[in-house]
Amino acid sequence: MTVVGLILGFGCVYFVMLRGEILHLIFNIDAIVLVFGGTLATILIAYPFSTIKEIPTAIRFIFFPKKKEHPIKMIEQMVTMSEKVKRSGIESVQPDLAAIKNQFLAHSIKMLIDGFEPEIVNDYMEKEIMYIQQRHQKVCSVFRLMATVAPIFGLLGALIGVIQVLKNITDPKTMGASMAIAMTTSFYGIFGANFMFLPVAIKLSEYSESEILNMELIIEGILSIQKGDVPLLTEKKLEAFLSKRLREKEIVK
Amino acid sequence: MTVVGLILGFGCVYFVMLRGEILHLIFNIDAIVLVFGGTLATILIAYPFSTIKEIPTAIRFIFFPKKKEHPIKMIEQMVTMSEKVKRSGIESVQPDLAAIKNQFLAHSIKMLIDGFEPEIVNDYMEKEIMYIQQRHQKVCSVFRLMATVAPIFGLLGALIGVIQVLKNITDPKTMGASMAIAMTTSFYGIFGANFMFLPVAIKLSEYSESEILNMELIIEGILSIQKGDVPLLTEKKLEAFLSKRLREKEIVK
Amino acid sequence: MTVVGLILGFGCVYFVMLRGEILHLIFNIDAIVLVFGGTLATILIAYPFSTIKEIPTAIRFIFFPKKKEHPIKMIEQMVTMSEKVKRSGIESVQPDLAAIKNQFLAHSIKMLIDGFEPEIVNDYMEKEIMYIQQRHQKVCSVFRLMATVAPIFGLLGALIGVIQVLKNITDPKTMGASMAIAMTTSFYGIFGANFMFLPVAIKLSEYSESEILNMELIIEGILSIQKGDVPLLTEKKLEAFLSKRLREKEIVK
Amino acid sequence: MTVVGLILGFGCVYFVMLRGEILHLIFNIDAIVLVFGGTLATILIAYPFSTIKEIPTAIRFIFFPKKKEHPIKMIEQMVTMSEKVKRSGIESVQPDLAAIKNQFLAHSIKMLIDGFEPEIVNDYMEKEIMYIQQRHQKVCSVFRLMATVAPIFGLLGALIGVIQVLKNITDPKTMGASMAIAMTTSFYGIFGANFMFLPVAIKLSEYSESEILNMELIIEGILSIQKGDVPLLTEKKLEAFLSKRLREKEIVK
Amino acid sequence: MTVVGLILGFGCVYFVMLRGEILHLIFNIDAIVLVFGGTLATILIAYPFSTIKEIPTAIRFIFFPKKKEHPIKMIEQMVTMSEKVKRSGIESVQPDLAAIKNQFLAHSIKMLIDGFEPEIVNDYMEKEIMYIQQRHQKVCSVFRLMATVAPIFGLLGALIGVIQVLKNITDPKTMGASMAIAMTTSFYGIFGANFMFLPVAIKLSEYSESEILNMELIIEGILSIQKGDVPLLTEKKLEAFLSKRLREKEIVK
Repeated sequence: MTVVGLILGFGCVYFVMLRGEILHLIFNIDAIVLVFGGTLATILIAYPFSTIKEIPTAIRFIFFPKKKEHPIKMIEQMVTMSEKVKRSGIESVQPDLAAIKNQFLAHSIKMLIDGFEPEIVNDYMEKEIMYIQQRHQKVCSVFRLMATVAPIFGLLGALIGVIQVLKNITDPKTMGASMAIAMTTSFYGIFGANFMFLPVAIKLSEYSESEILNMELIIEGILSIQKGDVPLLTEKKLEAFLSKRLREKEIVK
Repeated sequence: MTVVGLILGFGCVYFVMLRGEILHLIFNIDAIVLVFGGTLATILIAYPFSTIKEIPTAIRFIFFPKKKEHPIKMIEQMVTMSEKVKRSGIESVQPDLAAIKNQFLAHSIKMLIDGFEPEIVNDYMEKEIMYIQQRHQKVCSVFRLMATVAPIFGLLGALIGVIQVLKNITDPKTMGASMAIAMTTSFYGIFGANFMFLPVAIKLSEYSESEILNMELIIEGILSIQKGDVPLLTEKKLEAFLSKRLREKEIVK
Repeated sequence: MTVVGLILGFGCVYFVMLRGEILHLIFNIDAIVLVFGGTLATILIAYPFSTIKEIPTAIRFIFFPKKKEHPIKMIEQMVTMSEKVKRSGIESVQPDLAAIKNQFLAHSIKMLIDGFEPEIVNDYMEKEIMYIQQRHQKVCSVFRLMATVAPIFGLLGALIGVIQVLKNITDPKTMGASMAIAMTTSFYGIFGANFMFLPVAIKLSEYSESEILNMELIIEGILSIQKGDVPLLTEKKLEAFLSKRLREKEIVK
Repeated sequence: MTVVGLILGFGCVYFVMLRGEILHLIFNIDAIVLVFGGTLATILIAYPFSTIKEIPTAIRFIFFPKKKEHPIKMIEQMVTMSEKVKRSGIESVQPDLAAIKNQFLAHSIKMLIDGFEPEIVNDYMEKEIMYIQQRHQKVCSVFRLMATVAPIFGLLGALIGVIQVLKNITDPKTMGASMAIAMTTSFYGIFGANFMFLPVAIKLSEYSESEILNMELIIEGILSIQKGDVPLLTEKKLEAFLSKRLREKEIVK
Repeated sequence: MTVVGLILGFGCVYFVMLRGEILHLIFNIDAIVLVFGGTLATILIAYPFSTIKEIPTAIRFIFFPKKKEHPIKMIEQMVTMSEKVKRSGIESVQPDLAAIKNQFLAHSIKMLIDGFEPEIVNDYMEKEIMYIQQRHQKVCSVFRLMATVAPIFGLLGALIGVIQVLKNITDPKTMGASMAIAMTTSFYGIFGANFMFLPVAIKLSEYSESEILNMELIIEGILSIQKGDVPLLTEKKLEAFLSKRLREKEIVK
């Protein structure tokens, strides 16, 4: 979907500029250096290196999103586990540990088997969620900062262009050309901020939200297994996390 | 009301442009492609497909709002049910289930009849509300993002227009015409954002709020039935959800 | 005070425009239609009719504020009642009910006399407050939305004006006049938003706050009466709601 | 410090305008009437008179801040009191009441001596803090509103100026002069908002914060005295309110 | 990293201005006085001296960040301590106190040894954290205010420049030069705000966050030691504060 959006967006701009016969004006080395160099420089100052080095991963993630386990499958997995624990105790799940792909789920169950008390496990899981949420938010905030400063560097470029223009104000012909370059920088800044950085920040926080929801589902399941709920109850508790639509699909199946 | 607002808004703009004799300038293919194509492209990048496919439903909903059950009728229904449960137990409500239109109410009562414990039912209902609220907010936020980026694509169009103008700066006649087109794109972006996307986002969140309030009314009622409150008390508890004005009408009736 | 403010504000603008000899330019039918028609159309789309029909009441309320009961008088009333209840039971207050002007207070005491349990009464009162607060906030938010969109319709008017200007760019004389009209629309939008809609929204939320505070005072009083506190304690508890300055006046009296 | 800031700020502007030889243009009766008259009018509409009449006090307070008691001195006072109460009961503090300058502290201790229960005293004190905080925030919000509307009245003035200019567009000489006046009004609005109203709002909220902190220190102390803590514990509890730096100074002394 | 960012940012601007041949125009005494003098004046008015005198420390801190103890080392230290306390009582840690570099940890343990009750120690530590957080936020907010007002002083400078220009409007040659100066001031304001003040504010709050996280780690550890948890449990509890990546490194080691 992201790719469709990108093609559509660039297509629209290309179409309009082609009709206006100004395509050749839009490639401008000064504008690129100022807007993207300046934006990069700002985030290098603003964020510690540990945050900045996550940016490439985040960008790759936008184009090739991680295959997430479907919540319904995770519920089934935990209900099966719940039955097993009810029947033959927590230790009986040990052999299944290797088959669990979700590391968060696997680690939580391992803690249960190791005999840690429920509150400790719960506390551990919630801190983990909180930590992951913070890390995600930090990466989003880098993109938001980029969306904030990119148009400002565009504006700076426009100012530099205007100053240049004013220097040769008596010659209207050169003025037009320099002014066009000034405008191009603004264009880069605004386009970059609102078509690239802002939507990426939003999409990342969307992904983060759905990952966090899955982790909360796991916490609820683990708590239910720990309490020794009957499997039907575990299922009902976890089902509340699904939207009505998903639930109906499940029943149909 | 929405339709009256739309007619009034477009009427005002039409009237002013007619008087200014510039109606023919306002239909501009470049402006439409850039503003609406660009806005669409941005939300395609920013939101997952599962959210975007709810947009058409939301738009239809704005023009043809779902008939909601009136809270007073829902209170009457739950008070009647409360009497029945008090008299002959929770199972006696089973035959009435089919007559309950509100799916949320029907499902909650079914869980009570199935013998789930009060906390489980309550937890289930509250998660359901939270989930619906989140889904609504996400759809609203799509429209808010559209209201944010539409004027920016308008501005981009203006910039492209200005660059075009500056290219032929020595010919004031063409300059005027190109400039007019630049302005038209701004017009589209600003008008679309503030007259279409923003009010739609607000109206959707208004609808969402009143739907959530109804669901909270149901939760309160179910809890009261579960506790075995006398029907008068159930009624008084639910009445608190009504505004003074509605309450007085009820008494008059 | 509101009236003084209005006269002062319009006076300042009138004075400056008179000195600039442009008073005749400011009355402009296009600008009025676009700014106020457009703003009205937007709120018709954004808010349900039940909210919009409260706007005239709210405007009347700004000019002729409801006489509120003074908190000190309300405290006296509740302390007297507290004494009576302590002496001869809750039923003894029945005859005084008719004399209580504040409907919220009257209704709460009636519920006490009717024998509802303290938690029910308290819950009822708090939901009532919450409901009233929400209704107030919604009306405020309508005015805030008006303050947001009015300048944008002003800007749209300016854009239309500029497009008109650019059409006849070779004739500087007409250009000046059309441009002046474009500016006038901006003027209307900005002046309307910041001098009328925004201050009204703030004043309404000020009134709302002080009404809510009075209702919280009543809740505290009712709770104290219910618990059977000695009247001196009831008084001390309620006094905490008064500002130091008011308290000192009371002692002086 | 405030005075130094004011002199520095005005000095910078004066210096730059002197070098630009435009000092005589900056005094402009229209601009003053529109910006400061309009801002005053707006707050008269937006806020009730009870709030507006606190503005002069607030302004005086900015230039001549109230001498606050130093927290360390207050801690000493309360520790001494704690010792006395521990030794010979709460009544023994009665004679010291007259010597306590801080009215909030004096009144709280008086309530303790009068025999009110701890929760009542605590509740009373916390409501008092909440009330004072609200009053402070309201005064700050008046200044913030002024900072919001002042530049907008500046913009209105600029619009009026531009309209004036456009009326005589064929005469470039007058145009320059009128335009200069238009710019002056913008200057007043922006300078007033960001150099006067905004910093004052911030400083007032800084003062408010430190006053509230002192009151919370008193509450902690009173609670500790009431519970009959040993004086050393009272001191340790109160010390947590001091910053590390202050604490070290205290030890040095 | 900060230094790399600064060099990159200034480099980009230098490169673009060099190509535009306007480097000599950018050094402008008026612009420096107005933008940086005005910004300084504003914060002198807005913040008390106690906050302002922390600014130089904060700036130094940006370039030469304090070496923080690594969380893993702190966890090891506390686990060792936990073992010792479990074995031979809290007094046995006394000799190690001098070796603990982290003052916050040292002071907390000292309070434990001195026999203060757990709640007192906990309360003391949490107030300390809150206080430090507030102080950090205040310093950040100074930089944020600078980022807000710097571009506004730039705008004021531009206005002054425009007024100057308009005075000599009939002479297009001088007009260009004065206008260029006007633009330069805007440039200073915007560049200062977004490239210097805003990123510094963000970086400071990043540092603050990670310092606070370390302090919360210490609180958790101290609480665990106090409760007499087995060292393995203490370790598991503290480990939750580490990110997955750090944890894996630790295991590898």
